[in-house]
Amino acid sequence: MNQVAEAESGQPVKAVILTSGGLDSATILALAHRAGKECYALSFDYGQRHRAELDAAAKVAAAFEGTVHKTVRLDLRGIGGSALTDDAIDVPTRPSEGIPVTYVPARNTVFLSIALGWAEVLGASEIHMGVNAVDYSGYPDCRPEFIAAFGELAAVATKAGVEGNPVKICTPIIAMSKADIIVAGTELGVNYGDTVSCYQATDNGAACGVCDSCRLRAQGFADAGVADPTRYA
Amino acid sequence: MNQVAEAESGQPVKAVILTSGGLDSATILALAHRAGKECYALSFDYGQRHRAELDAAAKVAAAFEGTVHKTVRLDLRGIGGSALTDDAIDVPTRPSEGIPVTYVPARNTVFLSIALGWAEVLGASEIHMGVNAVDYSGYPDCRPEFIAAFGELAAVATKAGVEGNPVKICTPIIAMSKADIIVAGTELGVNYGDTVSCYQATDNGAACGVCDSCRLRAQGFADAGVADPTRYA
Repeated sequence: MNQVAEAESGQPVKAVILTSGGLDSATILALAHRAGKECYALSFDYGQRHRAELDAAAKVAAAFEGTVHKTVRLDLRGIGGSALTDDAIDVPTRPSEGIPVTYVPARNTVFLSIALGWAEVLGASEIHMGVNAVDYSGYPDCRPEFIAAFGELAAVATKAGVEGNPVKICTPIIAMSKADIIVAGTELGVNYGDTVSCYQATDNGAACGVCDSCRLRAQGFADAGVADPTRYA
Repeated sequence: MNQVAEAESGQPVKAVILTSGGLDSATILALAHRAGKECYALSFDYGQRHRAELDAAAKVAAAFEGTVHKTVRLDLRGIGGSALTDDAIDVPTRPSEGIPVTYVPARNTVFLSIALGWAEVLGASEIHMGVNAVDYSGYPDCRPEFIAAFGELAAVATKAGVEGNPVKICTPIIAMSKADIIVAGTELGVNYGDTVSCYQATDNGAACGVCDSCRLRAQGFADAGVADPTRYA
């Protein structure tokens, strides 16, 4: 039995969970669900290279009973500027210096903003995001200072914020290693075989094994001593 | 002849201008264009009640030579929660207390976020937004404290920010009255007949005359002593 998280009102805490279909967000959904929160999983059809991660997000959300799942369409491909939203830019298969070309300009700012809007409509008091600043690709919008700044913004941006009830931005795995995330999720029953982390997965979700995201994931399973369920192309 | 605004690099300053098709954003586009900036007008097809404002935005952008215009699709109707994105909520025709139902949760946060992404792809150093905190509808995300918080966020959210070149959020008319905005724009040659401010305009852009936005606009023309070119339904 999950405990039920209650707000001061006595109602269950509503949380919007950014759910990409990857390993990290599956884990934070499991954590919030176990804590008894009412979970509203939010995914984005933003013009990413493959749809496999959207299929994965739907599977992940369906695995946690009572979770409401919404996918918002948003055309970031119209802006481009990233290997993930412009087919003319290749996904790197070796580690690179600095911020890599898989960085999508302002993507997490955009995702959090739309989550903020949905949270306000729902009356949700929390937004959960699976950013990680340990085993990550070096994106600026995965760092604690970014999350803190977004929290400050949320407090002045919305009706709820102005009325003294700003939404809280929760990043439960930001300081965990990939191995620790995998251990925690495995204990909570996450089926990581449902998740897709690869930047250039095939349409049926098979991973390339060589992109930055695949390398971090494979190393995480190895370090955790957990069998890696990833399907490779 | 316009002056040419140059960055320290000697290149013209690139500015993303949020262009809604309304009176305020037409005026800020005129101001930036007159200042010699390279203007990138950005509009959103976000599921608003009518398309007339998108047609208006295209006309406004086309009136300022060299302006690049982009419309990004984004499904805020999937989230709802506002009279502008949910047909089940009527647009009020009388002034109301507090934040009105035409407020779209987190809309300006979302718009600025996508502008931030485009600015980064373009290498633009400025984002211009026509928010106004004098003659406005009381939305939380039109206030100076919101704009300041977004600027702080932008500085930590992007590659440009991390590299010491954060984009600047410019709100040139935030402290002006509607009448002063109309006077300034008229001097710059803005054709306000091209613009649509009404929350519930007809498909061909005729205004209702009774919503909050129509009332503020009509009062502005009256106070400015400028002939009002608005077409009413």
